[in-house]
Amino acid sequence: MCEIKGSSWQQRYSASEIFTLRCKVLDRPGKLAEVCQFLGEANINIGQISQVSVEDDYKIRDITIFFSGKDLIVKLHKLADKTRGFEIIKVTDDILEMHRRGSIEMVSRVPIKSLTDMRMLYTPGVASVCKQVEADIEKAWEYTGICDRVAIVTNGTAVLGLGDIGVLPSLAVMEGKAAIFAEFVNISGVPILVDSKEPDVFVETVVTIAKGFGAIQLEDVSAPTCFEIEERLKKELNIPVFHDDQHGTATVMLAALINAFKYTNKKAENCSIVMLGAGAAGLAISKMLLSYGIKDIVIFDSKGALCRGREDMNPYKKKLAEITNKDKFDGTLKDGFVGKDIFIGVSRPNTVSKDMVASMAKDPIVFPLSNPEGEISKEEAYEAGAAIAADGRDINNALAYPGIFRGALDARANDITLEMKVASSKMLASLASEGDLLPDILDKQVHLQNAKAVAEAWKS
Amino acid sequence: MCEIKGSSWQQRYSASEIFTLRCKVLDRPGKLAEVCQFLGEANINIGQISQVSVEDDYKIRDITIFFSGKDLIVKLHKLADKTRGFEIIKVTDDILEMHRRGSIEMVSRVPIKSLTDMRMLYTPGVASVCKQVEADIEKAWEYTGICDRVAIVTNGTAVLGLGDIGVLPSLAVMEGKAAIFAEFVNISGVPILVDSKEPDVFVETVVTIAKGFGAIQLEDVSAPTCFEIEERLKKELNIPVFHDDQHGTATVMLAALINAFKYTNKKAENCSIVMLGAGAAGLAISKMLLSYGIKDIVIFDSKGALCRGREDMNPYKKKLAEITNKDKFDGTLKDGFVGKDIFIGVSRPNTVSKDMVASMAKDPIVFPLSNPEGEISKEEAYEAGAAIAADGRDINNALAYPGIFRGALDARANDITLEMKVASSKMLASLASEGDLLPDILDKQVHLQNAKAVAEAWKS
Repeated sequence: MCEIKGSSWQQRYSASEIFTLRCKVLDRPGKLAEVCQFLGEANINIGQISQVSVEDDYKIRDITIFFSGKDLIVKLHKLADKTRGFEIIKVTDDILEMHRRGSIEMVSRVPIKSLTDMRMLYTPGVASVCKQVEADIEKAWEYTGICDRVAIVTNGTAVLGLGDIGVLPSLAVMEGKAAIFAEFVNISGVPILVDSKEPDVFVETVVTIAKGFGAIQLEDVSAPTCFEIEERLKKELNIPVFHDDQHGTATVMLAALINAFKYTNKKAENCSIVMLGAGAAGLAISKMLLSYGIKDIVIFDSKGALCRGREDMNPYKKKLAEITNKDKFDGTLKDGFVGKDIFIGVSRPNTVSKDMVASMAKDPIVFPLSNPEGEISKEEAYEAGAAIAADGRDINNALAYPGIFRGALDARANDITLEMKVASSKMLASLASEGDLLPDILDKQVHLQNAKAVAEAWKS
Repeated sequence: MCEIKGSSWQQRYSASEIFTLRCKVLDRPGKLAEVCQFLGEANINIGQISQVSVEDDYKIRDITIFFSGKDLIVKLHKLADKTRGFEIIKVTDDILEMHRRGSIEMVSRVPIKSLTDMRMLYTPGVASVCKQVEADIEKAWEYTGICDRVAIVTNGTAVLGLGDIGVLPSLAVMEGKAAIFAEFVNISGVPILVDSKEPDVFVETVVTIAKGFGAIQLEDVSAPTCFEIEERLKKELNIPVFHDDQHGTATVMLAALINAFKYTNKKAENCSIVMLGAGAAGLAISKMLLSYGIKDIVIFDSKGALCRGREDMNPYKKKLAEITNKDKFDGTLKDGFVGKDIFIGVSRPNTVSKDMVASMAKDPIVFPLSNPEGEISKEEAYEAGAAIAADGRDINNALAYPGIFRGALDARANDITLEMKVASSKMLASLASEGDLLPDILDKQVHLQNAKAVAEAWKS
C-alpha cells in the first residue's frame, strides 16, 4: 500500500559493508562503463564515483561500492584480471575509516586565546563558579554542562544483533549514539562502559557517577537484567533513566503504527495483535500498545504464547501474561496469526512464514523488527498480502531518543514517563509526509518538534 | 633578577572577578575619559572597551572591568550617581557567562548528512567495527575514541583553594581541565564525578568504568586519600593514572626550578631546600626533587619538620621523613629557613615572613605556591632579597598535564613514570624564552614538544 523510506536496494547494501576502491582506469570513452559492467556482474553495487587525478593516459578514480558477503577481494581480483587498463590501487573499508579514533570528541565551547581566557576558564577564576554551585546546587544546571550531558551506559551484553560481545567491543555503538545526539539535538553523550554483568555493580556504579549527568541512557543491556537495572536506577536517581532498546524502539514503532492505522482505516481499539518476542523491546512495546488503547495482544516467546498459568516464565513475562492474552490462547504461533490485524516481531530473523501472514485479517500490518534481518522480509510480507510492512531498518530508535532526551532535559524532568513516550510517538507520526509511516530522521526540525512534545507532556 | 610571565597587575585582577558593564555614555569628547577616571578612582581596573551602538546623543558601550572584593555594585552606583550623562544598563559576570551550560561539549567527528552516513555510523554498519574489536581487543585503540579519551575523576574533596565543597560544585573545574585538553592536545577529557569519600568505592567505581578510557586523571582529591587511591588504581589498571594536583604541579615546579638554577648559577646537587606543606603536592615535589639530584631537603607541615622519630605523622609523611632531613633537624620553621638556597611552599597563604626569606642563602629562589595567595607575596619575597620568585599563578599545572597525557597516550604507555615527568620538566624548561622560567602556556607547540619528550621517555 505504501512503500516507506529506507527500503531501497541501495540502502540495503549500504547496511552491510561499504568500501572505496582507488583505481587506475585507462582514459578512454567506454572504459568506465566496462568497469561498472563487470562490478555489476559480480553483484557489487556502485555508489559515488569521483575523479581523484589524471596521470598520463590514466585517470585515478575512487569508486564507492556496497557489498554483502565474504569474497569481495576474490571478486575484485577476478575483475582486475579480466578488465584491461584497470588496476585497483587500494581498497578502503569506509565504515572502519569513519570510526577511526572514534566518531566523537570532546571540544571546548570557549576560545583559549589569552591568559585571561585561561584564568576565567580554569583556576583561579573558575572558583567563583564552584562557589555559586556550592551555595545553590541547582545552579549546576545553569553553569555546568549537566543540562546537556547524557551518560550512554552499557555492559555490552546485548549489542545490536551480535549478543554478548563484551563491553569494549560495544564502544563504537555508544559513540555512534553520542554522535547522533550531538548532531541532532546538541546533547553531549558520554559513553560509559560498565565492566560487569552484575546488576548490583551496574546500579551502584551508575548511582556513584550520576551527579555529573543530566540523564542516563541505558543501551545494549540484555534482558531480563535490563529491567531490574532500569527499575532500580529510576528509583535511586532523580534524573531521567531510559533504556533505549526498550523504549526508543517502542516509541518509533508506535509512531509508525499510528500512521499505519490511518492508511488502513483501522482503529486501535478494534485491532488484534500477534507479537513474537518477549525481551527488552517486547515488554516496552506491549506496555505502550496497551496504553495507546489496544486491547487484544497475544505475545509469543520461543516456547509459545505468554499465558496466565504457564510455568516457565520469568517475573517480567508473568506480568505481561497478566495484562495481555485475555482469552488465554495457548496454541501454536501459526494459529496465533490467524485473523490478526497486526504482527510485531522483536525476536529472531526468519521465524515467520508467508503462510502465517496470509492467514491474517484483511489489510494486515506487518512489522518484522528483528535484526539484522526481519522475522520475515518485507518483500515476502507484501507478497503474502500485507497492506503495510516495515522492518528494523525502517523502525530506527535514533528517530526517537534524541528528541526524547532533549525534551526531558529542557523540561528538567526527573523521569521519562509513558505519557512522554506516547506524546513522542504521536508527534513523530504527525510529522511524517503523506504516504510515509515516519518522518525524515535527518531533519533536525523533526527532533526539535519531538523534544517540544516530550517537554510539554512532562509539564502537563 | 628576572620578572617572569604572569605577574603583571592586569593578570592579578583578571584572576579574581571580571564583569562587563553595558553603559549608555553621552556622546561628547572627554566623556569616556571622565568615566575611566571615576572607575580608576574606585580601584576598578579597565579591560576592553567596545562600542556596541550609537543612539541619538549617546553611545552604548561594553566596558570590561577587573575587580576584587565585594562592594562592586555599591561602587558602581556611586559612579553612576556622580557621572552625568552616564548610565549602567546591565552588569554581566563574565566568568559565570563563560561557564554557562558548561565549557565543553561532545561533538560528532563525522557528518551525518545521508541515510548512508547514519547506517555507517550507527546500526547496522557499526556492527562491523564491533566485530573487529571483539576479534582483537587492541583494535579498540584504532577504531574507537579511547586513544584520545581521558577520564577526569574527582570526588570534590580538595577543590582549588576551596576545600571539600562537594562533587557537583567541582564540576566546572573538571570541565575547564577538559577544555584545556581539547584546545591544546586534542584529548577528549570526560569529567567523572565520584560521589563518595570512601577510597574503596572510588577505586572500584573507576576500575569498573575504566575500559572506556585511555587514561585516568585524578583531580582535587584530598590527601592522604589521594595517595591510596592513586596507588591502588595504578596497580589495578593497565592504563596511565595521574593525580594532577601532585604530579602536574611537581612537573611544572621542577621545570621552573631548572631555569632558576641556570639564572642563579646554582647546582642542584649543592642546593638546600626548605619546604612548607606535606600534602598531595608536597609529596610529589619531594620525590621529583630527590630524583633530580637534590640531596638536602627539610619539609615542614603545620606541626614542624618531618623528622625520623616524630610521632604524629601519617604513613606518607613517615616515608618522606625517611628520605629527607638527613640531619634530623627538628627546630622551628623560622630556623629552618636559615641559610637555605630554595624555599618551596605548598601549604597556606601568608605563612612565611620577609625575615625568613632574608635569612636564606645568597640569591635565594622562592616559590610560594599556595592558593589563592602565596605563603608570601612575590613582592615581599623580592624585597627580602629573593633572586627569583614564582607563585601559584606562575606554576600552573595546565602547562604540564596536556602534553604528559598526550605523550602517554601516543606511546600507548600503561603508566606515567617518574622518568616521564622529569623528561617533561626538562623539556618545558628548555622551551622557556631567555629570562623566563617557563614557556608560553598558550603555545600549542609547547604542549606538543612536551608530549614528544614524554612519549620518548616511555619508549626508552
